[in-house]
Amino acid sequence: MAPTLRIALVQFQAKPLCVSENFERAASEIRSAAAQGNHIVVLPEYHLTSWAPEDPTFTDACAASATYLHQYQELARVLNIHIVPGTIVEPNVKPGDPVVELHNITYFISGTTGEILGTYRKKNLWHVERGILTADKKSPHKAFDVPFPGSSHVVRVGLLICWDLAFPEALRQLVADGAKLVIIPAYWHINKVNPKLLALSPDSEAVFLDSATVARAYENTCAVAFCNAWGHSQVTMPVLGSLGKLGAEKEGCIISEVDLDTLEVAESHYKVREDIGSKEWHY
Amino acid sequence: MAPTLRIALVQFQAKPLCVSENFERAASEIRSAAAQGNHIVVLPEYHLTSWAPEDPTFTDACAASATYLHQYQELARVLNIHIVPGTIVEPNVKPGDPVVELHNITYFISGTTGEILGTYRKKNLWHVERGILTADKKSPHKAFDVPFPGSSHVVRVGLLICWDLAFPEALRQLVADGAKLVIIPAYWHINKVNPKLLALSPDSEAVFLDSATVARAYENTCAVAFCNAWGHSQVTMPVLGSLGKLGAEKEGCIISEVDLDTLEVAESHYKVREDIGSKEWHY
Repeated sequence: MAPTLRIALVQFQAKPLCVSENFERAASEIRSAAAQGNHIVVLPEYHLTSWAPEDPTFTDACAASATYLHQYQELARVLNIHIVPGTIVEPNVKPGDPVVELHNITYFISGTTGEILGTYRKKNLWHVERGILTADKKSPHKAFDVPFPGSSHVVRVGLLICWDLAFPEALRQLVADGAKLVIIPAYWHINKVNPKLLALSPDSEAVFLDSATVARAYENTCAVAFCNAWGHSQVTMPVLGSLGKLGAEKEGCIISEVDLDTLEVAESHYKVREDIGSKEWHY
Repeated sequence: MAPTLRIALVQFQAKPLCVSENFERAASEIRSAAAQGNHIVVLPEYHLTSWAPEDPTFTDACAASATYLHQYQELARVLNIHIVPGTIVEPNVKPGDPVVELHNITYFISGTTGEILGTYRKKNLWHVERGILTADKKSPHKAFDVPFPGSSHVVRVGLLICWDLAFPEALRQLVADGAKLVIIPAYWHINKVNPKLLALSPDSEAVFLDSATVARAYENTCAVAFCNAWGHSQVTMPVLGSLGKLGAEKEGCIISEVDLDTLEVAESHYKVREDIGSKEWHY
């Protein structure tokens, strides 16, 4: 029997460019999640800087935020909790090249060692990010193994970021590589969107997020942990759907218990992972 | 401005092997849908025979059902309504070969001419169908153009069947080929499912169908018309989500008005079709 995984999703809106203040808040939430016996804690995309590319100090704030990664590693080690520290935007300086690329990256930090078990740079940038960030369009999506604290069980995990959720190809590649849990930090606006969309339906983005997170879990018989700065953070599962979500523009921490055996019940019925992994797979 | 498309989904459970009786019922529903000014009427998968492969007369009933296609063509022509006559299982007899394959096929019949504008043989068979039906695993998913009754507007349409909905690849190929409306006749049980699934959640299949139909519409900025013998028939759209659905195990006809301009509002924001059609598309 597989163990039950406790996942804490911390939904909050970072103060633009206030890196150290945002880190203190994140660290406090991580301590609280660890104290409540969670195995994994996830923060949202841009949780240290927010998204403020129009500010001339944005790149400097990103550079400052990148220095906090080792502090999350130390927290993970000391508190014995796996940490996905949302995303960190890192300036990519190449010697002799005056162009500084900005990379939006997420990490999976091991709770027992502080080691980085997995990392992912966003591939599918949202449209306004495209002139500012540089996507990783070349490397394939790869999953990685995560030891389960307090047992010999290993869970294969994948990472995505925000708008990647809209692309079924992204999650499909991770699941084809064995992922059973996909973690997605996000900064997906729900109420502040294109007015043409809101005029047609004020629920447009809420419906998008709720349907896509659940559909991805079913169509891949995997668990999806979506942690969004702006709301609807939730863990979804095949058979069960959403395990509970936080509302739009609210802040807080939602804890979900993921029974990994449920994934196997789902897979024994739908056999999706079996199909996409078979020699006869036709797509 | 694009016209508004009125789509009627007829949700009913065919009487097993009672082909002529099921046809009369279908014809009556089609006449009613036409009288109410709909442009397209859709019937469920297996609507003439039901799914009864354990009955020794199943293949004969399928052979009989195949002869009704021309009657649907005549109805479409006379009533001036596009018809998707659910699916028809057709025995595929090859001269000199004693093996008779069964093909599960859907059609799009033009309301103005009775002509068959598109056809599709199921690729992704549900597991219990695999020993009985033969899937088309080779040909790519293709869309086709449908003239809009009473105007010069043309809508590009794709066809899928039931369990195909679970595979994002299927709808993706149709949309890459220009489809803006995908029609899916289905025979997807909602209450009669694997007891292990129902023990975990009695809503498992309802949640699967509701999330997948809506997510497919958003992730492809297209309309999806899902007509299921066993419930949750609905048309879904990006931005709007579900336009209304029929309940599980209920019978009836649900009419949805599809404003094609909504698809363009969605596409202008999400630009998914633009992305998957661009030279830089990286999946």
